Amino acid sequence: MKVGEKDFRSIWHEVADPGSVHVIDQRKLPFSFEVMTLRSSGEVCDAISSMAVRGAPLIGAAAAWGVYLSFLAHSSDNDIYSSVMIDAHKLKATRPTAVNLAWAVDYMTEVLKSYPDAGVMHRAAQGLCDDEAERSRSIGVHGLPLIEEISIKKGGEVVNILTHCNAGWLACVDYGTALAPVYLAHDRGIKVHVWIDETRPRNQGSRLTAWELSNHGVPCTLITDNAGGHLMQNGMVDMVIVGCDRATASGDVANKTGTYLKALAANDNGIPFYSAFPVSTFDMSIDDPNQIVIEERDGDEVRKIDGINIAPENIPVSNYGFDVTPARLITAIITDRGVCRANRDSILKILA
Amino acid sequence: MKVGEKDFRSIWHEVADPGSVHVIDQRKLPFSFEVMTLRSSGEVCDAISSMAVRGAPLIGAAAAWGVYLSFLAHSSDNDIYSSVMIDAHKLKATRPTAVNLAWAVDYMTEVLKSYPDAGVMHRAAQGLCDDEAERSRSIGVHGLPLIEEISIKKGGEVVNILTHCNAGWLACVDYGTALAPVYLAHDRGIKVHVWIDETRPRNQGSRLTAWELSNHGVPCTLITDNAGGHLMQNGMVDMVIVGCDRATASGDVANKTGTYLKALAANDNGIPFYSAFPVSTFDMSIDDPNQIVIEERDGDEVRKIDGINIAPENIPVSNYGFDVTPARLITAIITDRGVCRANRDSILKILA
Repeated sequence: MKVGEKDFRSIWHEVADPGSVHVIDQRKLPFSFEVMTLRSSGEVCDAISSMAVRGAPLIGAAAAWGVYLSFLAHSSDNDIYSSVMIDAHKLKATRPTAVNLAWAVDYMTEVLKSYPDAGVMHRAAQGLCDDEAERSRSIGVHGLPLIEEISIKKGGEVVNILTHCNAGWLACVDYGTALAPVYLAHDRGIKVHVWIDETRPRNQGSRLTAWELSNHGVPCTLITDNAGGHLMQNGMVDMVIVGCDRATASGDVANKTGTYLKALAANDNGIPFYSAFPVSTFDMSIDDPNQIVIEERDGDEVRKIDGINIAPENIPVSNYGFDVTPARLITAIITDRGVCRANRDSILKILA
Repeated sequence: MKVGEKDFRSIWHEVADPGSVHVIDQRKLPFSFEVMTLRSSGEVCDAISSMAVRGAPLIGAAAAWGVYLSFLAHSSDNDIYSSVMIDAHKLKATRPTAVNLAWAVDYMTEVLKSYPDAGVMHRAAQGLCDDEAERSRSIGVHGLPLIEEISIKKGGEVVNILTHCNAGWLACVDYGTALAPVYLAHDRGIKVHVWIDETRPRNQGSRLTAWELSNHGVPCTLITDNAGGHLMQNGMVDMVIVGCDRATASGDVANKTGTYLKALAANDNGIPFYSAFPVSTFDMSIDDPNQIVIEERDGDEVRKIDGINIAPENIPVSNYGFDVTPARLITAIITDRGVCRANRDSILKILA
């Protein structure tokens, strides 16, 4: 997607500099656009654990390049595989709950086992990135008609879409999940406008979504997490699209904390509510949303902002990172394989 | 209520220093507890317009003392009444939408017209403050049984109460509105715990509610505005109590933005949702909540925190200060005259 006039992905490799991979330092956004050049598996580890690089698909892509860089570093070792496996374990340990990360690392070490060759390893990492981007684009293709339909109903007037957190190209390799249909609609000339929840406590909405949408030229307005209900009550929201961290086999969606509140408001006002994600996000082993363990994060995320206290210093804080939106509140799920209803039968059909 | 070991009101007059009134500088909370001594009507104006003093009941009380201080300053004027009226107009202009402010100023100038006497004026201002405190205490008395009932049902276990914004003693003269029943319950030895929404964008929850509850010794936990839904889904909230800025004759409640989302979540999880306020907050001339004009505030409240940018500098922002919770989502209204249902008949009975 565009930054200024130039097209970017959130991670890329340059032929002229084969021993490196480039990412955007997301900690510096939206105030400064800085490209980081990572030259070793260790530097990739640091970028992931410091959250310069975040978002499940992007973390996986970065880790794949990390294995590739480890291979280059150890290419003259007697036992390349063992050396790379040490780095692979370190990569996996950076964010232990990220399923995508473990999957990408395992994929790369499998490739290494069969074809210990720099060219093959390079193509594997690049292929993994391209697949990720293509998956996002497919989500966009399947979600686009839902936006188009509202646009037609409104006689070509602006379609107002509310989103929560950052499920855009910064979290993925390109396009995003929730934002992929938005980018495709905008690029086709459909008039869209996005209400961006700031998404406390980490403010991914105000920091990342606001930055990426406005840089691509998509009209957008920042709001507090409290505001969406009032906007929906007053006809100012046509649809809601959010991402997803894990979905149950019944179509319940675990996503950034606060998502459930927006789903309730959408439901109360007859506004369609969509969750967009690749089918790999379905955890078909889970039927009951209570089985999803919700991560509790550091209270200082709430007490401080950029290191500055915004609450009494020792006030107790509860900081669950996610909540679960029950399937009954979800109009449909937009995946890379098509749109399905939030129920087991419809999900199984998409997965078949 | 208590700050450390000492009992405070949010505004007080000291006999030893008759030409002044004392308030807490709420801009400095929760980081520093500073008492401001206001020695003139002009200083009262500044305290209100700079939001050192905020909350409708407290603003009214401060303005009443402002008229009293103006009287003292002009006591040797030929036409005291005209001189004081000039200051009275300035006091009213500080926050033009605050109904309570205009009412308190008019009350004091009426007293002045009939009894231009320092002793009478002093007693009028003090009486207005005492009445305000008593009204809050009455809200507490009427709300207390609702907490007690849950406490008994839970066999004396902690009653978990969620609140939004600051509707405590800092906003009033004493006790508060939403928090009055909580303070009374706590002081009676009923085990309570309060979940405090931080209340973006002005963070009255993290700055003021967190400060006043913890100083009084009420167990409390700060959460983001996004978190309440998850807590309610998981049985961690027993009741919700919020304040109100204006209520319709049908029992719809306009309160700080985000209140509606909590009401939806309470409703979805079978949790009682109460709004607590003095009967003067009912606007019986309004039946349709769409008639309530919702104030739009400066976008920098969302873009910045303590002057620091937390979003792209020129991102468009929408910042409605309030939302309306429809009567159907409100279990009951707690007033200074008793508890009523959120419907016209029940409200008329309370007002009769």
